[in-house]
Order: sequence, then C-alpha cells, then structure tokens
Amino acid sequence: MIVSMEVGATEQQIKHVLSVVASYGYQSRVEPGEQRTVICVVGVGSAEKLSRAFQAVEVCDGVDHVVSITCSYKRVSREFKPSDSVVTVNGSVSIGGGQFAVIAGPCSVEGRGMLLQIAEAVKRDGANMLRGGAFKPRTSPYAFEGLGEEGLRLLAEAYGETGLPAVTEVMNPDDVALVCRHAHVLQIGCRNMQNNPLLDEVGRVKTPVLLKRHFAATIEEWLLAAERILKGGNPNVILCERGIRTCTEVTRFTLDVGAIVAAKQLSHLPIIADPSHPAGDRKYVPALARAAVAAGADGLIVEVHDNPERAKSDGKQSLTLSGFTRMMEQLQPEIALWKERYLLAHRTLALAG
Amino acid sequence: MIVSMEVGATEQQIKHVLSVVASYGYQSRVEPGEQRTVICVVGVGSAEKLSRAFQAVEVCDGVDHVVSITCSYKRVSREFKPSDSVVTVNGSVSIGGGQFAVIAGPCSVEGRGMLLQIAEAVKRDGANMLRGGAFKPRTSPYAFEGLGEEGLRLLAEAYGETGLPAVTEVMNPDDVALVCRHAHVLQIGCRNMQNNPLLDEVGRVKTPVLLKRHFAATIEEWLLAAERILKGGNPNVILCERGIRTCTEVTRFTLDVGAIVAAKQLSHLPIIADPSHPAGDRKYVPALARAAVAAGADGLIVEVHDNPERAKSDGKQSLTLSGFTRMMEQLQPEIALWKERYLLAHRTLALAG
Amino acid sequence: MIVSMEVGATEQQIKHVLSVVASYGYQSRVEPGEQRTVICVVGVGSAEKLSRAFQAVEVCDGVDHVVSITCSYKRVSREFKPSDSVVTVNGSVSIGGGQFAVIAGPCSVEGRGMLLQIAEAVKRDGANMLRGGAFKPRTSPYAFEGLGEEGLRLLAEAYGETGLPAVTEVMNPDDVALVCRHAHVLQIGCRNMQNNPLLDEVGRVKTPVLLKRHFAATIEEWLLAAERILKGGNPNVILCERGIRTCTEVTRFTLDVGAIVAAKQLSHLPIIADPSHPAGDRKYVPALARAAVAAGADGLIVEVHDNPERAKSDGKQSLTLSGFTRMMEQLQPEIALWKERYLLAHRTLALAG
Amino acid sequence: MIVSMEVGATEQQIKHVLSVVASYGYQSRVEPGEQRTVICVVGVGSAEKLSRAFQAVEVCDGVDHVVSITCSYKRVSREFKPSDSVVTVNGSVSIGGGQFAVIAGPCSVEGRGMLLQIAEAVKRDGANMLRGGAFKPRTSPYAFEGLGEEGLRLLAEAYGETGLPAVTEVMNPDDVALVCRHAHVLQIGCRNMQNNPLLDEVGRVKTPVLLKRHFAATIEEWLLAAERILKGGNPNVILCERGIRTCTEVTRFTLDVGAIVAAKQLSHLPIIADPSHPAGDRKYVPALARAAVAAGADGLIVEVHDNPERAKSDGKQSLTLSGFTRMMEQLQPEIALWKERYLLAHRTLALAG
Repeated sequence: MIVSMEVGATEQQIKHVLSVVASYGYQSRVEPGEQRTVICVVGVGSAEKLSRAFQAVEVCDGVDHVVSITCSYKRVSREFKPSDSVVTVNGSVSIGGGQFAVIAGPCSVEGRGMLLQIAEAVKRDGANMLRGGAFKPRTSPYAFEGLGEEGLRLLAEAYGETGLPAVTEVMNPDDVALVCRHAHVLQIGCRNMQNNPLLDEVGRVKTPVLLKRHFAATIEEWLLAAERILKGGNPNVILCERGIRTCTEVTRFTLDVGAIVAAKQLSHLPIIADPSHPAGDRKYVPALARAAVAAGADGLIVEVHDNPERAKSDGKQSLTLSGFTRMMEQLQPEIALWKERYLLAHRTLALAG
Repeated sequence: MIVSMEVGATEQQIKHVLSVVASYGYQSRVEPGEQRTVICVVGVGSAEKLSRAFQAVEVCDGVDHVVSITCSYKRVSREFKPSDSVVTVNGSVSIGGGQFAVIAGPCSVEGRGMLLQIAEAVKRDGANMLRGGAFKPRTSPYAFEGLGEEGLRLLAEAYGETGLPAVTEVMNPDDVALVCRHAHVLQIGCRNMQNNPLLDEVGRVKTPVLLKRHFAATIEEWLLAAERILKGGNPNVILCERGIRTCTEVTRFTLDVGAIVAAKQLSHLPIIADPSHPAGDRKYVPALARAAVAAGADGLIVEVHDNPERAKSDGKQSLTLSGFTRMMEQLQPEIALWKERYLLAHRTLALAG
Repeated sequence: MIVSMEVGATEQQIKHVLSVVASYGYQSRVEPGEQRTVICVVGVGSAEKLSRAFQAVEVCDGVDHVVSITCSYKRVSREFKPSDSVVTVNGSVSIGGGQFAVIAGPCSVEGRGMLLQIAEAVKRDGANMLRGGAFKPRTSPYAFEGLGEEGLRLLAEAYGETGLPAVTEVMNPDDVALVCRHAHVLQIGCRNMQNNPLLDEVGRVKTPVLLKRHFAATIEEWLLAAERILKGGNPNVILCERGIRTCTEVTRFTLDVGAIVAAKQLSHLPIIADPSHPAGDRKYVPALARAAVAAGADGLIVEVHDNPERAKSDGKQSLTLSGFTRMMEQLQPEIALWKERYLLAHRTLALAG
Repeated sequence: MIVSMEVGATEQQIKHVLSVVASYGYQSRVEPGEQRTVICVVGVGSAEKLSRAFQAVEVCDGVDHVVSITCSYKRVSREFKPSDSVVTVNGSVSIGGGQFAVIAGPCSVEGRGMLLQIAEAVKRDGANMLRGGAFKPRTSPYAFEGLGEEGLRLLAEAYGETGLPAVTEVMNPDDVALVCRHAHVLQIGCRNMQNNPLLDEVGRVKTPVLLKRHFAATIEEWLLAAERILKGGNPNVILCERGIRTCTEVTRFTLDVGAIVAAKQLSHLPIIADPSHPAGDRKYVPALARAAVAAGADGLIVEVHDNPERAKSDGKQSLTLSGFTRMMEQLQPEIALWKERYLLAHRTLALAG
C-alpha cells in the first residue's frame, strides 16, 4: 500500500498515518519527495485486514490518495494458481484446459416441442451443452418472463433425450436448490453479477456457475464476484464476457475481446464468450463468435431458435437452425487454430517447467 | 410503432410484416419512401400485447429497425398521472409535493453508540430520516458486510429514541419481511436495480421503496424498474440518482443532474439525490448536494459518520458531524429557493387549470 | 513515482530498473513486500524529464505498473498558483474571482438582423458577452457550417452596437489571427480540445481562450490541454464544462457538475458551464443552468435564438428570447447565493491567511 | 422522417408541422394513434435539404421527437456503392477487396538508424507499409512531439531503401501538402476525427487517408467524418478502429470488433484495426490482432520498436522486433482463413448476381 500525502501535509498528519498503519500491524517507511511525502506500507496480513487498514488510512487528514499494491482478489488469480482451471459439467463436458465448449439453445424455453427440436439440431452441429432460460430477467415488467419450474423440467427432459447438460439462469437465491435439481450449470446473468446473496448461495453448492460480466463492470469487479463464489466454497466458476455498454450505437453492446485476453492472463478460470447479446442482430453473430475464439475464449454460448419470428425474447439476435449450422461449419478451422495455439502454449510451458 | 424496412426489401417481405401486424390486431399503413418503405402501425392494446407484436415484427426478414412510439412504461409516467406523487413514510415524513426530505446517517450501522450519536446529531441539523446499512453490498468478499438483523434492531431503537424513520438496504427477497418489521423505507441499491425477484418482492408490500439508479442504467431502464414495483402493487416508490460511471476519473461517479431534471418531467414519482457516492470524497459532497437541490431533487440522502477514520465502509466520502452541520446551514437558502420554485410552478399550474 | 514490480520479478530485473532510474538522475529505494517488490523513486526534475523517466521505467521487463505521484500538469494547478485566476475580456468583463459571467447568443451567426436583435435582448436581460458561431464544427458535411468571416464582421458590429464582447469558435490554426481581429474570446470547441496545432496557436496570442472539455475527456486531459495553452504563453484560459457522453439517453449529454467542483479545486482557472448542449432540449436548460451555478461555476454560456424554428443549428436546445428572460430572472437569487458563498470562502481564507 | 407528436399536441400544432414540412417540398401523412399522433414525411430531396427540414420540424411546438429514416451519410454507404472499395497506395499496395494489409513501424520516428532497422525487419516479416509518426499528438505538452519535417524525410528515405510506402499522421491542415510530398498515406488520428478543417484539407488531395475512429465516436459520426472526405473529392479513405474508452480498466482502450463487423456492412470502405492502442501493453497485442482479423478487418496497423525501453512514446505497447516476427508467423493461418472467407463470400455473391 502506497500512501501519497497532500502537498503541504503537516508532520503531525504524517505521524498520525504512521500510527494508524502501525495499529494494524504493518510497517511503513516515509519517503519525502520534492512535492509531497509518500509512505510505503509493507507487511503480511489477510485480505480482510488489509482492506480495513486501507480504508482507515484513506480517510486520514492530509492523505491525498492510497494505491494498493496487492491484488484485491486472490483465489481466482493466476498468482494463486498458475495453471488453467478446468470446470467439468455433469462428469461429461469440460470447459478450459484445451477443451472448447459450445453452449447453444433458445433464449427462453418456450415449450417442449421447440426445445427438443433445437436441442437435437444444435447437438448435431456440435454443441455440447444446451442453454435455455426458465427464469428470464426482463427489463420491462410487461415482457415474457419464462416458464419457471416447467421450463426447468423441459430442460431436464431435453437432457434425457440428447445428453446435453443444461445451462440456465437463476435469479433468486431461493431457486438455487430447485435449479440444481434440474440443470447442470447455474447461469448468473449480467444484471445479477453483483447480487451478493445470489453469489453467496451458488457458492454453497458445487454445481458449476457461469458468471456473466455486467455490462458496465470493470474486470476487477467481475473477478471479485467470482472470488466471492470461490470463497463461498464452489471452485467451479466459468467466466462469460457478453458485451459492455459503450458509445457504439449499431450493435447492442460491445463485445470486449480485450477483456477475454486480459482476464485469461489475470485468472486461471475458464472464460467463454456470448456473441449474441453484443450483436443484437443475428447478422453480426458469426463474426463476433470468430473474434472471441481468436481472442482465446474457451467456448461460446449462443442463442438459437427454430423460429426467431415467434421467439418470446431476443428473436432478433437468435440464429436460425440453419444459421447455426453454417456458423459452426465456418468456426471449425478457427477452433482448430485455437487448439493448436493452446497446445503450443502448453508445450512451451511444459518444456520451460 | 414505426417499421422501417431495409433498402431493397421485397413486396413479399412487406406483405409478411403486414400480416404479422394484423395477427396482433393492429392496423398498419404502408408509406413508400424514396429509399425505403416505412410501415406505420396503429391501434389499441395492452403493453404486453404491444411488446410481443414489437418483437415479432422486429425479426421479420427485410425489417431494418422498429421504433416504438408509445412509452415502454405507463404507471410511473406523467402521462398516466400528471400531478406529483407524494410518498409518506411512517405517517410522518412526506417526500415529493413540495416537501424536501433529508436522509442522513452512516453508510453502515456499526454499533449502538455510533448510530444513536449520529442519529441525534443529524436530527438536530434538520434531517428527517436516518439512513444506515445493515446488509451491505460490498464489491470485495473480504470487506465488512454489515451487522444484519442486529443492525436492523439498532435502527429501530434509534427510531424509538429520535423519531427518525429508518431507511436501509435490502438485498435478498427473503429479507424483505424482516426489514419491513424494523425499518420504514426499503432501499434498493444501485447494483440491484434490475434484480427482478427483489423488485417483485418489494412490490408486494406497501412500505416505501427508495430505488437507486444503477450506475450504467438508462433513464428508461430505471423507470421500468420502478414500473415493476408499481405493477406489483406498491405505489410508494422514491427514485434516487446516485451517480453514473463515466470518463471522469477524479470523482467516484458522475452525479447526473440532467437525469433528475428529465425524470421529473417524465415521471410523477419523487426523486432524491445521493451526493456522497458520486463525490467519493467528502470535500465534494456539499457542492454536489447544492447542485442536486438546484436541479430540482425532492431530497437528499447523505452519508455522515462521527469518526470517518474508523468507518467500516465509505469513510472517505462520509461527512463528519460538523461537516454535516455546516452543509445543512449552507443548504437552507438553496432549499428555500427550491420551495419558492415549487410553489410558483404549482400556482402557475393551478391558475392555468 | 512508485514502481510496482510483477510477482516473481527477478533480482536482475529490479537492478535494471534501478539503473534506468539512476540514468535520469533520480534516486530510488527498494521496498520488498510480501507479494511483490515496490521501488520508490524520488528527486527533483522538470516535467519533461520526469515524463521520459516514467516511460523508460514503464517498459522495463518485470515492471507491473508505475504510478505517478506528482501531477502531470503544473501551470494550471492550484499547487502552482493557489488563488483564483481572473480572466479579463477586452478590458471590460471579468471571469473568475467572484465575477459571474453570462455569455448568450445564437448557436450560429445567421445574419445581421437576428444577431443584433438577440444581442440587444440578452444584454437587457443581463448577459455580459455575446456568443455566436461563424465557423461551425458540424458532424454532417451536409449541415450549415457558418458564415465564416462575414459572421465575424457581424459579431464585431454587434459589439459596436451593444458593447458586448464576442465569443466565437475557431477551428483552424490559420484563422486564429483573423478571429482575434474581430472577436474577444477564442472558443475551442469540445471536438478540438486535443487539436494540438490549434492549442499551440491560441497559446501564442493573449486573447482569452474558452476551452471546452471534450465529451469523453478525463479531467486530467482537459487540464493538460489548458496547460498546453499556458505553456505556449497565453495565461487567459477559461475552462468550460459542456456535458459528457454517457448511458443517459434522454438528455443529449450529461452535464458533469462534479467536474466543475473538482476542477475548481485542482486548478486556479475560472470555469463556466454550458447548459444548452447537455440539455439538447430547451426545456431542460434552466434547471441545468441552476445546477451549474450551485456547483460553483463562474459563469454560463447559453444558446438563445429569436426564432428557434428557423435556426440553422441547435434550434431545439436554444432558448427563445422570452425563455432567456425568464431563466435570467429565476437565476438571480441563485447567483446571489453564489456570490455570498464566494465572499464567505474568501473572507475565511483571508482570516486564515 | 417520422414525427412523433407529444401526447396532448393540439390540432394547431399538428397543422403547423404539416406546413413546415410542405415549405420544404415534402409530403406528409397524419397517423392518429391511441396515445399520440405520428406524421410520416416522404419525398425526394438532397441531404442538405433533408437536414434543414429535420431541424425545422424538430423544434416545432408539440413535437416530441423526430426519427430519420434515411441514412445521414450517403457516399460511404453500401446502399450507394454495394461492392467493396479498394484503396491503392502508391500504385503498389491495395487495401480492401481481398488484399490484407499490414502496416508496422514505430510510434514515432526517432532517428534514421532505428527507422531503417525497423523498416527492414517488418518488411522481412511481411509488412507491406511502414508507419511512423513525425507530428505526434501528445496529451501532455511536456512529452516528445516528433521530429516534424525531418521525420518525414526519414520516412521517405526508408521508402527508398525498402519500398514500403509510409503512413504518417497529419494534424495541421497547413502540413497536408508537405506530408503528401514525403508520405503515401495521411493518417488522421483519433483525436482529430472531427477536426473539420483537416478533413476538408485531406479531401482536396488524392493521397489515401487512414481515418481513425475517435475513442468515443459513434459509428455514424465516424462514417460522417469519412463522408466529409469523400464529399471533398478524395475517395481513398481507409477506416481504422483503434479502441474506445469504456469501463474496462486493464487494457488501455476496448477494441470494438463489433464496430469492424458493423461498419463493413454499412460501408464499402476498407477497414483496418490497430491492436496496439487498445492493448496498451504489448502482451495483449497478438490476441487483439487475431480477433480483428477474425472479425473481418482488411488489415492491421501495429507499433513495433527495436528497443521499446528507449522509445519516446508508446514503448509499453510496442512489439519488439522478435515479438512482431512471432505475431506475424502466428497470424498466417488466421489471414489464410480470412482470405478463404472473402473468396467464399464473393463467389456466393457472384453466383447470386
């Protein structure tokens, strides 16, 4: 922790900061500068203690600002665990560690027939998990909000028919147990990325969690949300970049490929991308999917509908069945390059190790 | 609803759109333009039906984009209810309708002594409600997260001592009943503005709700979150602008005074401002508070601490007790002007009516 | 300058950083931490030298990041000059130092009649300078771009008639001399805030410069643009906050009142606000003007048109003549409070000094 | 143009809008809706006339908002010219139309030796143009601002030695002729994207222009800046996406791959990507480059330095010579896929045609 005092801070103010630092058991050294004095704080302690000391110093009179040197997250960081984490879903599908995952399906589960038809189609095209919303977080209270438990049962039925594990959103901490009974991955939607009671609840189970980044979250906030789940006891977190709100007005959101690249370097957790929400229109989806794979995403989650015109949500950005088929065909060489890069990077690491 | 077809859209595509429109019971008229055809859709229907028709048309082949003419929210709009709503808290304090509300207190309830001391001090300075967090939504899982139910009991005790109704955040739908027993206003924090299960739950009670705007929400999204609460059955919603995330790097957030102005014209709900979070540093708080009052906010919610250096959260942006005293003194003429403007506007309306 | 090394940085990497630091004549001290090593760099030097040393260290292997302790700007900072700067225009109007400035007029100078009529009207209502664009920076190349030199001559004529000094935008470095001959304040529009050849050119004259903040600039970038003008030799810079691009969709931009507050604490330069552009609609202008005054702005620049429906630019956000009259009446008590606060703050300073 | 009247707009207000519309020679039809009246305006006219009519209607009393149906840009649009434009540089290098361009070189031209060494190295690795700044738009007035004309001469010399055409930034309209004498592509930096005198000046020559998107510009604003150059008479515009300012704090900017995808569908102009500036750190550059190619960019512009530690600008984000070699090797299969996709798309178009 580096404490930068205000220009003109008094001796007494500096001494007070030193005593606050000492009260938390840290050592400090004063560095008088040309314009202002800087205090370097060093020593060992838990994240909790450091967080409290930081706040205590920050508000002392004469302090201009405080810069943290240590990372605010720990369990999710590469420094804590250098090798890639692999999340295994239902004992059958792996994400991370050189396995590329494709999750596809409708935005919402709207009925039995459509779900089974879509599930079979996306499986044929190479998807290895099925997405489908039963509890839908809609902006307008007048929009379709999902079939609820009935939707979960249909996902379980689709799993029985196709073997595709089900990925579905959970919004209410009270629903976590219910969703765990029927589905295989708990999706935390972007609007709930900082819904702490929900994060705490999914931290208490072992079912994998797909944690979407909020559309205005920093990477640190995203990783801290993941940290909360790991701290709660569930190590099976898959990060998901789904686009941020920016000045760009043509696409619905901006897919932040740099966040995929950076988060993979900062964290050992697998990271997938959702090209559908940033696109906002199916015509942009395949190119965004390619860009995400090229940036190093460990997988994709894509909205597909057998009849987008009749979709109860996100129809405009849902691929048709044939559109998904085409996209998957075109993605194959891109995914093959991704695997080569993965092997190359890990061979290099193995040789260096 | 105005449907703008793509340049080069075919006759068949246009006909298809017309049939989709007709299937929802709306009428449409085709307007062939120089570059592209436009279809005007008119007719009566519920928000639900319109929302479905909008989505169905949006995904038709050949459609470039669809523009809604009607507002997406209804119950919260001025068009639905032209006169200002007044929310009454605990039968004693009114917000809106020319009554200026001041909510002050610590970020977190940290203990009995500090809470009572702060409550008495802010009451003396003119605050008419007490804020204090019992359930704290922290970004880091290593930060202090509040005293929980014990914090609620202390708020109730402070109410007993001072008569100041308590405003406190609720994050978990399961806690709504508990919080209602102890506190008088349910605060929905900015991170939970689109936590629908929580909004639905506070829509089921009559306890007033303070709905903070998310730091990246549009005004429409904010009003739709309020709409959800009203639709659920609770008309007692107070909007709260607390700053948005922008390119500005010196303050913590950007207080959006324009949002206060615009939301007051769009909605009949009372709107207050939180100058503490956008400031991020107590030295900026009084000026932001003044700006909010001048912009027309119906009240303020301000963080105050008897010993910010020892605060367990938000110490840097908390006013000291004497800082709050000074700010309240300086605000008096600003609030007096606010009242004059309110009376003038309503006299004008009464004369015009 | 504080250098934070990567976790796992080698002894050799640390030594290399020390040698780079030494090569610029600075001293450094190594602080080994629990996770990572930190190097504190101290010593005296010019902004140029420090900037070069910063860059050289930043790219060394093993360096995670570098934090600057000294401010990147100097001449514009309060630390350099604690007392408020007062900019005097044409020997007659002062901005800053307790003088409140009101600049009003049409977006564009469209003709002689309209300009003189507006000039006389705004003068009557208390404006002390006239705005009017002769060179207009339009987004579309198909929009009206101003009368050019003819517009400048009309501004000079209006000055002759009313005595109101003219504020007008300059976009091309080649036009600076020409604009100086006819007008009294050189406006740098937000899109040209980082147009360095233009900033350099206005730095070579003594005519006051109104420097608008870009709609996506940080406060540091804004102050560095001002620093460039001062460094060039022109100390007469007036900062102008005119709104930033954010998630808010109802107003055209978000007036950043916090930036006014913060910039006044960081810099001694006067700061005015433009409520017209963030409003985007005249109905929001008066409230934004009030908020800016309450936040501490030293003046306002407002668009006014005698017939907004016929305006060639920004008609929707231009106040009518009677609208301006009403706004000025309503602003009087707000400006009176502003003056009281100014006197109070300066009396306190004087007593403390 | 669709005019949406306010709820409660009077008959007289509607009639006034109709008369304004008629005064511009357009026809209109009134569509009374449930809540509000809508007026559809149709007819033929120039962009200039439409722009004026739009503004005139927008400010009429009783008008809520106006939506444009026609595109604000024309010459740059796919509707105007469906086939991809190919920009040829110096008669030797093509951008667009299935030719992939790689522009590489130092941020700034710092001297003869370094420039020639870098030029030869990047040529060996497959670059077909050389970048290098002679006039540098620095944020701080204390930073290195380029060698000016001397830098241009060195670029010309490097061209003589290597045959690589030179891409260099121009900031001052007065320098356009000078830069054209020495270099082959005029770069407009992101901060000057809306510097109209500069855009007008480069519109008067035929030298190709590389137009960077401003870090907070909409796609429409970017295309309108290009439109200005084409309108001026220079059709040789290459668009360049270089990252936008967002909530992401780890990378310097956010590379907007969706903007590449969308702009290619909206415009016929070639679009390249700059992965260096959004990265901000060389370790992120190769992955961003890959993502840009996968998204469909027609080329890359990359910063490379022989000794980043000694670079006078952007050292941290400059690839080393060997880093560039590695990146180019790894990009080959990605570029091969890009070419296949191009051929496939054009064969499909040819067959469909």
